[in-house]
Amino acid sequence: MLSQKMLSLGKKSSSIREIFEYSKKRKAEIGSENVFDFSLGNPSIPAPKEVDDAIKGFIDSFDSIDLHGYTSAQGDMQVRETIAKSITERFDVPASANNIYMTCGAAASLTISLKAIINEGDEVILLAPYFPEHKVFAENAGAVVREVLCKEPRFEIDFSELEMAVNKNTRAIIVNSPNNPTGVVLSEDNIKRLSEFLNEKQKQFGREITIIADEPYRELVYDDEVVPYIPKYYDNTIVCYSYSKSLSIPGERIGYIFVSPKMENSEDTFFAVCGAGRSMGYVCAPSLLQRTVAACEGIKPDLSAYDKNRKALYEGLTKIGYSAVRPDGAFYLFVKALEEDAAAFCERAKKYELLLVPSDSFGVSGYVRIAYCVGYEQIANSLPAFEMLYKEYNEEK
Amino acid sequence: MLSQKMLSLGKKSSSIREIFEYSKKRKAEIGSENVFDFSLGNPSIPAPKEVDDAIKGFIDSFDSIDLHGYTSAQGDMQVRETIAKSITERFDVPASANNIYMTCGAAASLTISLKAIINEGDEVILLAPYFPEHKVFAENAGAVVREVLCKEPRFEIDFSELEMAVNKNTRAIIVNSPNNPTGVVLSEDNIKRLSEFLNEKQKQFGREITIIADEPYRELVYDDEVVPYIPKYYDNTIVCYSYSKSLSIPGERIGYIFVSPKMENSEDTFFAVCGAGRSMGYVCAPSLLQRTVAACEGIKPDLSAYDKNRKALYEGLTKIGYSAVRPDGAFYLFVKALEEDAAAFCERAKKYELLLVPSDSFGVSGYVRIAYCVGYEQIANSLPAFEMLYKEYNEEK
Repeated sequence: MLSQKMLSLGKKSSSIREIFEYSKKRKAEIGSENVFDFSLGNPSIPAPKEVDDAIKGFIDSFDSIDLHGYTSAQGDMQVRETIAKSITERFDVPASANNIYMTCGAAASLTISLKAIINEGDEVILLAPYFPEHKVFAENAGAVVREVLCKEPRFEIDFSELEMAVNKNTRAIIVNSPNNPTGVVLSEDNIKRLSEFLNEKQKQFGREITIIADEPYRELVYDDEVVPYIPKYYDNTIVCYSYSKSLSIPGERIGYIFVSPKMENSEDTFFAVCGAGRSMGYVCAPSLLQRTVAACEGIKPDLSAYDKNRKALYEGLTKIGYSAVRPDGAFYLFVKALEEDAAAFCERAKKYELLLVPSDSFGVSGYVRIAYCVGYEQIANSLPAFEMLYKEYNEEK
Repeated sequence: MLSQKMLSLGKKSSSIREIFEYSKKRKAEIGSENVFDFSLGNPSIPAPKEVDDAIKGFIDSFDSIDLHGYTSAQGDMQVRETIAKSITERFDVPASANNIYMTCGAAASLTISLKAIINEGDEVILLAPYFPEHKVFAENAGAVVREVLCKEPRFEIDFSELEMAVNKNTRAIIVNSPNNPTGVVLSEDNIKRLSEFLNEKQKQFGREITIIADEPYRELVYDDEVVPYIPKYYDNTIVCYSYSKSLSIPGERIGYIFVSPKMENSEDTFFAVCGAGRSMGYVCAPSLLQRTVAACEGIKPDLSAYDKNRKALYEGLTKIGYSAVRPDGAFYLFVKALEEDAAAFCERAKKYELLLVPSDSFGVSGYVRIAYCVGYEQIANSLPAFEMLYKEYNEEK
């Protein structure tokens, strides 16, 4: 009598969630300092002071009825103007409030965007490795998912693979850069080539192919890495943004959808976004948080803690002998498992209290994801465990 | 290339939204004090002091990473325990944290609950007059909507009408008491009879029929009116709650779903709720707000302003000669239009700067909804306009 699809989605917790539960149990048994849990992508740096100051400031200075009242479904006009101005200034892309729809975070941005543009049977391309929920969201919108494997070792787009996957039913492709789980930022060359490729395919099939740019990690990049802003290169783009990672407020659920005005039917797409949000019960994004992120627009997170972790982990592991993708952004390290079966490798890592996520749910095999948004001590203390694990495999050879 | 359903949902703003836009324009022309806008159900009393105190208190005392971090998808455990305890104490209904799923408000509660239980082709019954978005939400879940007219003048459930509508495809019925748009609270007798009726139908058709109780107005009742808590009377119940109206924070989007543990497959239903939330991108309800409403659980709103409006408006209008449903709760008055065509009546009311909502979008004809969550002066100043409108109709006779 229930929707079996929803029941199974609700019952089958993600593999990440399962590790999280194991971790809780194990920490209770042997002490949390002895468990090296690298499973969750939960920011480990506090929100910038400006976030809490903004919240308190609004409460002290704003009329309660205005502050906590409904905003329009698209979001508060002033908030949207602030964000649009910031997009134009930072990325040299035209943007107005009428292109911005405030959402409850990146997941909502994605489900709403997909629902707006997908008709039953349309195909959505995921570039593997991809964030597992992308598949859930695309299927929820009625799409058929096609996975396209990226090219090792840096997981840039493989155009010969993409060529084989794009067809007359292709409606969208989700691009997630900086990437979860690899931390890789797609190069400007890669984005330019993708843009040319898709423009050609649009012509060939006489239909639109939209890039849905999932960008929660845009602000989390190291060594002055530049993340190309896709609407600058490809007109038919919807950007899904979230402040979860940049402002370390993942629980507050606040982000936006930017429908590029350069899109041919941009205005109607925006209407469809409004309709999709409405159909799923997103009345408006939390009003206090809308104002807060607008007040904090442009504030850069202090990434020094993540960067320190990144270097220590990448250098530590490669020195031992592991092979890993050097991450440009986000807070994940993608490491080659020491046997073909990544799940078996993760099981063996547990012996050393190392909790890693096998890459299979990200659409590729043979890797593990290590989320390094943890305390630095955990990185430092875990390296001997990684070394023992490595030795165990090498003694077998 | 877009989803035409979403496009039309996004383009066709509700009639309420259209009046709101007209109102803005008209206020700019003749001054806002001269426009009597009764269209929007936006709370007009400030949030209780405890809400803002709680928010500031959490920011000052909580660790930032915990406070703004993800909660579990169902919501923070302590928050859910607080709410479950409150349900048990106030309504004498068993409830535990495992029955509570925190949401982004009543609309999200409804879309998630419906998606969890509906299979393509299932029928959902709406008791007219109903909140127009109920139809949007039920259809989004893939349900076929059946409207059942309630019995005038008090709009209690009409069981002979209901008898004709319930069939082997009926899967759920949405009950909204206190009701938007009538303000009527369904009596205990009505709820008991509904419960008996549905239990019989469940037996007859050998399938579950779930009551989805949409209760954002539960706390907004006058004259010590008691609102029967449906899970006490009917086992197969899901309660959709929101703090929007009780705490005057509609923009903050916070509420919950309570899956009655007395439901036969309560545990699986809860899983399906989790799956439905996940599929639509509801990662968790805003964490700061979750904690805030738990801290404010049990705080009663000061309804004196609404009650004063209610009395002034109801007495003022009936004295003039209008016929209206005396509201027990919420902040709406449902008034008989002075001609059959409610939309035409509303057009004529505009001449006197009275902005009312015709009842057609609520599934009944011949009435108007007046939202009296406005300043008292607006009520007082509008009565002469209502009188002129009434005279205009009577002079024609």
